[in-house]
Amino acid sequence: MSGGDTPARSLGGRFAEATDAILHRVNRSVDVDRRLWREDIEGSKAHSAMLCEVGLLSVADRDAIHRGLDTVHAEFDAGTFVFEDADEDIHMAVERRLGALIGEPARRLHTGRSRNDQVMTDTVLWLRRRVSSLAQDVRAYVDALLARAEEGLDVVMPSFTHSQPAQVSSVAQWMLAHADEAADHVRRLDDLAARLDACPLGSGASAGSFLPLDRAQTASALGFARSSTNSIASTGSRMPLLDAVAAATMLGVSLSRLGEELVWWSSPQFGWIQLPDRLTTGSSLLPHKRNPDGAELIRGAGKIAAADFAALAATMAALPGGYSKDLQHDKAILFRAMDGVADALVLAVSHVQALSWNAEALRAACVPQLAALWLADRLVVAGMAFREAHHLVGAVVREAGAGSLAEGLEIVVRSHEVPDADAILGELRALTPEAMLHGLQTAGSAAPSAARAQIADIRSRVAVR
Amino acid sequence: MSGGDTPARSLGGRFAEATDAILHRVNRSVDVDRRLWREDIEGSKAHSAMLCEVGLLSVADRDAIHRGLDTVHAEFDAGTFVFEDADEDIHMAVERRLGALIGEPARRLHTGRSRNDQVMTDTVLWLRRRVSSLAQDVRAYVDALLARAEEGLDVVMPSFTHSQPAQVSSVAQWMLAHADEAADHVRRLDDLAARLDACPLGSGASAGSFLPLDRAQTASALGFARSSTNSIASTGSRMPLLDAVAAATMLGVSLSRLGEELVWWSSPQFGWIQLPDRLTTGSSLLPHKRNPDGAELIRGAGKIAAADFAALAATMAALPGGYSKDLQHDKAILFRAMDGVADALVLAVSHVQALSWNAEALRAACVPQLAALWLADRLVVAGMAFREAHHLVGAVVREAGAGSLAEGLEIVVRSHEVPDADAILGELRALTPEAMLHGLQTAGSAAPSAARAQIADIRSRVAVR
Amino acid sequence: MSGGDTPARSLGGRFAEATDAILHRVNRSVDVDRRLWREDIEGSKAHSAMLCEVGLLSVADRDAIHRGLDTVHAEFDAGTFVFEDADEDIHMAVERRLGALIGEPARRLHTGRSRNDQVMTDTVLWLRRRVSSLAQDVRAYVDALLARAEEGLDVVMPSFTHSQPAQVSSVAQWMLAHADEAADHVRRLDDLAARLDACPLGSGASAGSFLPLDRAQTASALGFARSSTNSIASTGSRMPLLDAVAAATMLGVSLSRLGEELVWWSSPQFGWIQLPDRLTTGSSLLPHKRNPDGAELIRGAGKIAAADFAALAATMAALPGGYSKDLQHDKAILFRAMDGVADALVLAVSHVQALSWNAEALRAACVPQLAALWLADRLVVAGMAFREAHHLVGAVVREAGAGSLAEGLEIVVRSHEVPDADAILGELRALTPEAMLHGLQTAGSAAPSAARAQIADIRSRVAVR
Amino acid sequence: MSGGDTPARSLGGRFAEATDAILHRVNRSVDVDRRLWREDIEGSKAHSAMLCEVGLLSVADRDAIHRGLDTVHAEFDAGTFVFEDADEDIHMAVERRLGALIGEPARRLHTGRSRNDQVMTDTVLWLRRRVSSLAQDVRAYVDALLARAEEGLDVVMPSFTHSQPAQVSSVAQWMLAHADEAADHVRRLDDLAARLDACPLGSGASAGSFLPLDRAQTASALGFARSSTNSIASTGSRMPLLDAVAAATMLGVSLSRLGEELVWWSSPQFGWIQLPDRLTTGSSLLPHKRNPDGAELIRGAGKIAAADFAALAATMAALPGGYSKDLQHDKAILFRAMDGVADALVLAVSHVQALSWNAEALRAACVPQLAALWLADRLVVAGMAFREAHHLVGAVVREAGAGSLAEGLEIVVRSHEVPDADAILGELRALTPEAMLHGLQTAGSAAPSAARAQIADIRSRVAVR
Repeated sequence: MSGGDTPARSLGGRFAEATDAILHRVNRSVDVDRRLWREDIEGSKAHSAMLCEVGLLSVADRDAIHRGLDTVHAEFDAGTFVFEDADEDIHMAVERRLGALIGEPARRLHTGRSRNDQVMTDTVLWLRRRVSSLAQDVRAYVDALLARAEEGLDVVMPSFTHSQPAQVSSVAQWMLAHADEAADHVRRLDDLAARLDACPLGSGASAGSFLPLDRAQTASALGFARSSTNSIASTGSRMPLLDAVAAATMLGVSLSRLGEELVWWSSPQFGWIQLPDRLTTGSSLLPHKRNPDGAELIRGAGKIAAADFAALAATMAALPGGYSKDLQHDKAILFRAMDGVADALVLAVSHVQALSWNAEALRAACVPQLAALWLADRLVVAGMAFREAHHLVGAVVREAGAGSLAEGLEIVVRSHEVPDADAILGELRALTPEAMLHGLQTAGSAAPSAARAQIADIRSRVAVR
Repeated sequence: MSGGDTPARSLGGRFAEATDAILHRVNRSVDVDRRLWREDIEGSKAHSAMLCEVGLLSVADRDAIHRGLDTVHAEFDAGTFVFEDADEDIHMAVERRLGALIGEPARRLHTGRSRNDQVMTDTVLWLRRRVSSLAQDVRAYVDALLARAEEGLDVVMPSFTHSQPAQVSSVAQWMLAHADEAADHVRRLDDLAARLDACPLGSGASAGSFLPLDRAQTASALGFARSSTNSIASTGSRMPLLDAVAAATMLGVSLSRLGEELVWWSSPQFGWIQLPDRLTTGSSLLPHKRNPDGAELIRGAGKIAAADFAALAATMAALPGGYSKDLQHDKAILFRAMDGVADALVLAVSHVQALSWNAEALRAACVPQLAALWLADRLVVAGMAFREAHHLVGAVVREAGAGSLAEGLEIVVRSHEVPDADAILGELRALTPEAMLHGLQTAGSAAPSAARAQIADIRSRVAVR
Repeated sequence: MSGGDTPARSLGGRFAEATDAILHRVNRSVDVDRRLWREDIEGSKAHSAMLCEVGLLSVADRDAIHRGLDTVHAEFDAGTFVFEDADEDIHMAVERRLGALIGEPARRLHTGRSRNDQVMTDTVLWLRRRVSSLAQDVRAYVDALLARAEEGLDVVMPSFTHSQPAQVSSVAQWMLAHADEAADHVRRLDDLAARLDACPLGSGASAGSFLPLDRAQTASALGFARSSTNSIASTGSRMPLLDAVAAATMLGVSLSRLGEELVWWSSPQFGWIQLPDRLTTGSSLLPHKRNPDGAELIRGAGKIAAADFAALAATMAALPGGYSKDLQHDKAILFRAMDGVADALVLAVSHVQALSWNAEALRAACVPQLAALWLADRLVVAGMAFREAHHLVGAVVREAGAGSLAEGLEIVVRSHEVPDADAILGELRALTPEAMLHGLQTAGSAAPSAARAQIADIRSRVAVR
Repeated sequence: MSGGDTPARSLGGRFAEATDAILHRVNRSVDVDRRLWREDIEGSKAHSAMLCEVGLLSVADRDAIHRGLDTVHAEFDAGTFVFEDADEDIHMAVERRLGALIGEPARRLHTGRSRNDQVMTDTVLWLRRRVSSLAQDVRAYVDALLARAEEGLDVVMPSFTHSQPAQVSSVAQWMLAHADEAADHVRRLDDLAARLDACPLGSGASAGSFLPLDRAQTASALGFARSSTNSIASTGSRMPLLDAVAAATMLGVSLSRLGEELVWWSSPQFGWIQLPDRLTTGSSLLPHKRNPDGAELIRGAGKIAAADFAALAATMAALPGGYSKDLQHDKAILFRAMDGVADALVLAVSHVQALSWNAEALRAACVPQLAALWLADRLVVAGMAFREAHHLVGAVVREAGAGSLAEGLEIVVRSHEVPDADAILGELRALTPEAMLHGLQTAGSAAPSAARAQIADIRSRVAVR
């Protein structure tokens, strides 16, 4: 377990039978929640310090507990901590080991505390760190993207809609699309971290304690802005976990889209980018393979986290107030979702930094048809209504086939009234992808000047406040 | 459709064939996105005003467009707007009708605009309102809960863990558990609303426009703090929708837990609460039935929204940058998730306001065993280590059976050393549920004074800033 | 509603208050379940015929009911049936209208029946048809794929792993990959249809009826092999719906993979296939666009259905036995999932039939490196251990660069012992993609003879038994 | 990994750089797929036996390989097998160890095989066993339920709809509701096991092999009815896993509903059933607790599996044909889903066998109102139209309040025409819950005779064919 108040039978003076073997096995959560050992010890130190302050623990007992917990901490650090089969969860394991180390005072540690408030304290402590470190990693990802954007301000490439070339754009604009979304993720994660401000410790099993616990003190000692408001909500809800899985999923979904681009754009048919050997792998059968496994793993990000969100929401839904054992799997879900996205994020940083682009292939992909919007907008400037211009350029495109739009326009002007036709034809014949890129006029566009403004804007959005 | 740049064939001078009938049917999204008519018109008015400012539209044309859009608005308001089969989406429907009303100027409205930026502008406008109104509705729910909490400060009832009675608590503490979580939802929704601050309009199809559009002006006219940063991200992402569905799911999950409590606690076996006739329904076969349909519908909340989150995330994941038609179903998912939770929320307010509790049944449910923690904490105060106290009280409980713990303790003291035994026995014999409630000492507990502090705390957390 | 026993207040002699307006609105399910009108009428005819047989309905009343139901049927067929606001669900709507048409006998129709068994009967009837028709549509899809496979037996193209070229394969093998999976879907759907063999009618509200209903007769009249076993399971479970959504999801996932291939392979960078104009659409802004909307919609298939499965499972889970109102949304979920996949399937058939492939581009994509496995297998035949051969061919590939493997091998033989080197070099120089295709020796491979055997195998697997 | 063709760098003569450390870590799947060791060895033995038969391996090499694999098998059995960091997956680990044991012949084992067909062979072998053993476990669950049903044929209890008492039913009918659903699960699992009939081995990396592999022989040696049809589908699809997760989810959902009943019905407010000490657990804080953790864990079943289905479906969707690395997590998802449901199933068997019911409490819960349907049906027999009867009984219920319906009817007859009033009043006064139970007349009802028929029916449906 972990998170419930279902202890090993040793706890109970109340029971006539031992726990069923299968129930013991399924109930046992220590293989998952052992990961919270650091937070569990941290919480126990704060709790025992407070117990001493309010007179529920002697100074000697508190010191013994702190020394013992330091030893347990060192054992975990050194990888020498040994779990026993009876250790149902990390809380019981630490307390059991503490007892072996210091004897009687260990039996006073759990005073005024339930595993219900303990595990949520551990989990929120863990989450606060994880969310903050994830936000920092996203900032590193933004940095990597912005660095590549600066290199690619003038490198033309097509933008897509419907996986079909849409407009002349730039490598910078591609990188900035991801950086812009990533900056939103930073903000979302920062908002989330700020909401993780309440310490559940002292809520007890469900309705509070008969002992004069000083919850403000433990909250402050553990770095929380406040103690949590309601004891039932604090012990029975898993909303902070769900909130974090949602944020991780959203980040993963963004990464997944980068992954799809990396996979296809590094295929021989595109040949737009290349990944270094160290980010590709071979095949057990096909000696020539050079597979973009990393890019595929990035593409897979978010899909599993999204389902983890649904799993956790379904698990929490329709439970009555207070802790229920159904929540047993909450941390396994949380860890899987957070780890999967964090792994993909680190891979994404490596890929962004290491990929090289083939500027010639990218330029060659800026086919003549990509001038269609330029021509339509030019006709608008010449006074034509946009819908007329759109229709006329459609005809131009049809006439041009694979050739230049100038060729198509030459045919179309024979049968259609086209304002400024000669001037436009001249401009069109001279039009290069680079000219189109620089001709974009709107904020947020791929024009190098606009891209530069985006870089500044994104940089300021992710600055640590 | 809606959200893509896939128009009716009428748009294209480029095509030799009509659209396939099945594709037309599946592609058509107007049955869903018609709900955005108000936002679509609002965006078009801002867009055309800006076009006029920057010299791309004459004053006369702008005025004609505005008057025409006002007429379309009035038709929607009156329910007289008629859709045609060729209306692929709300955008094409409004533009088609505008053309019928005002002729040529309508053909200039789409200047510098794609449906890709248009639909995201419509959607974010809609979302901003929906999220804000949802936050207001949650505030109303908090108010309802706090009002009932004030009535129930001294009404004892058991709190649960594992769906089993845990401690003596109060009706107020129950209401406050929900209010506390709801206050978190308010904060989450407020954070979300604050993040919906960027206007996508002017991003074009994917890489920006060759026309000198003033994006800051339209952003400001539509009440946004800024225009969006990157044209590809602004048109190809659906992250604001996913963010909203996540927040709605979390709210729904909280409501669902209230629903479970309402369902069971109003069953004859509990008899803790009663719902008025108007919130129950009968059976087509069983004449005696009085079913808590509303409570069951509240219990169902969040489950479908959670899956909608997964559906939208899976739909977005692994798409390359820019709009892809796979996103076709984004708004159907969004609306279903938001509506489902909003309905449950309104039902929850009604139920909280209308339920009555049976104070006698609640008090009777505070069985003698609920004094177990009191006794253990009392023994701790008398100097016993908590683990000893826990074990000893376990034995007391076993001896007491269904009787009072005093009876159990009388037996246990014969064979165990119990500090302060006589005093404790005396206190225990006199202990009432009410005394236990008032004896809770911790912040956030069910003690009436602590509950009063919670009310103040929650009220301040949901105050509109 | 639909599926519960929560009627309009009119039913109840038991209630003192009208139903709350919000509850009435949320409770009302007729906008969704009206789709079951045909099955509802069919079930009512069978039920009333049985009531007459067992003496609970006079012949005259039965005839009146049947005539009335025929009229209602005709009204639905003609689109003239008018729903009223009080029509909570399709069952109440039909019964209300029947009453208006025939008077008193209509009030005898619901004898021995609950909406709980009625709605499951309607739904299983609907599902049985839907699943069968879906299986037929998959058979049509298989036919389309096999027809194209026959055209493409000798058309070489690369197969992929990791979205990178793996081996020389054929268009037939590509089509057969989808046909093989589709044949599995046919089998899964047939299995499912066979399991929909039990008629819930006569189960009553939950525990059966005091009237001597002949359940075997109604089951038989409605084409079921048997009446359902247990009245509680028959009315409270939604497992057949979940089973169907699972099968639909799996089908959708297969289609989605075809969609991804269609999208990318029709991009200019691949240029492997082309879709006709009628299966592409234009853009509202970009006059040159020719977007594969249909292919993208196919790619989106299955993602939403998968979430619908999770939504329905979460909704059913943790409900106590018997009908609960939480199940209100079951049919909306079912219809959305089944419709979405069915639409994608029809689009897929169109796309498979209409796409054309560019044999030259496909052959050109069979780059020299694709001979790597041929070479390794050839070295194995020459006696080399496979792992040695794999490593040596890796070196050959590295030396060859973009050139032919023969060039690479020429370099490698200088420094490595290669058995049969001269013969192998000669064969390698003469090796064509076509020769490689025909050189494949295994059952299930892309060799034209093996592909022909696959066609026969798949055809026999989808034959209607 | 596992499932792809992405080997350790050692495989490749083609690469100039080592694999990136992060990519290596994320790519490594052996911690998950080690569970397939038995199937991997089994597949390798069949493969090498076939290689020998077709002349690609000498008898001596085959014998060396088989002896070596037997040693590896023994090491796994004894828990002495040591994984190395370079062991990317179970396949590479076994081959590496085999090489250490037998030298050169080990380098011939992978002849004509890819990890792509190898891992699917392992997985389908594993699945076939798992699905069959799960079906057997469900049969054991059915046996347990039927045994309790036989004990409870005459034990009256209320049935529920909307979590409110609906009719007089029996403990047998409750048990049979679960047994009926479970029998459907047996059938579904049997259907699924029958579909797992095709052996992927010999499909190669994607398009087959240039070596004369005898796929029919390996298929037969591994107990499959046939070799799989298409090499691309066989290596790139994960449909059998998805199919299994769907079936497991459905089973889990049924169990979850039992869990909800066990949780609430064992609460003091119901007191309908009791669980033995060994199936309950205590609390770390509350000495009196006796928590139904097992029942709660059963209630949680299916929710996570449902999300796993969505996760796997989303992961598979939109991948192009052939293996892609995105599928990396397929087995972690599969194992989690199957294990979770299997655990809950074993717990459910224990709970069903061990629970005791409180016949007095169950009888007392059969409140007078439960005669409502009896009375309505009785009035129908007396000639009243059902809708009239329903309305009249509603009035009776209202008049009766908490009293007997006879009291209510006495009042109602004063103002309403009631056929056979005196006889009915007499019968109603004498009516007991037991008489109502026996009065049910329909197949599938709770009447003891009908329940006995259900037992026979279910027993025959789960008989092993």
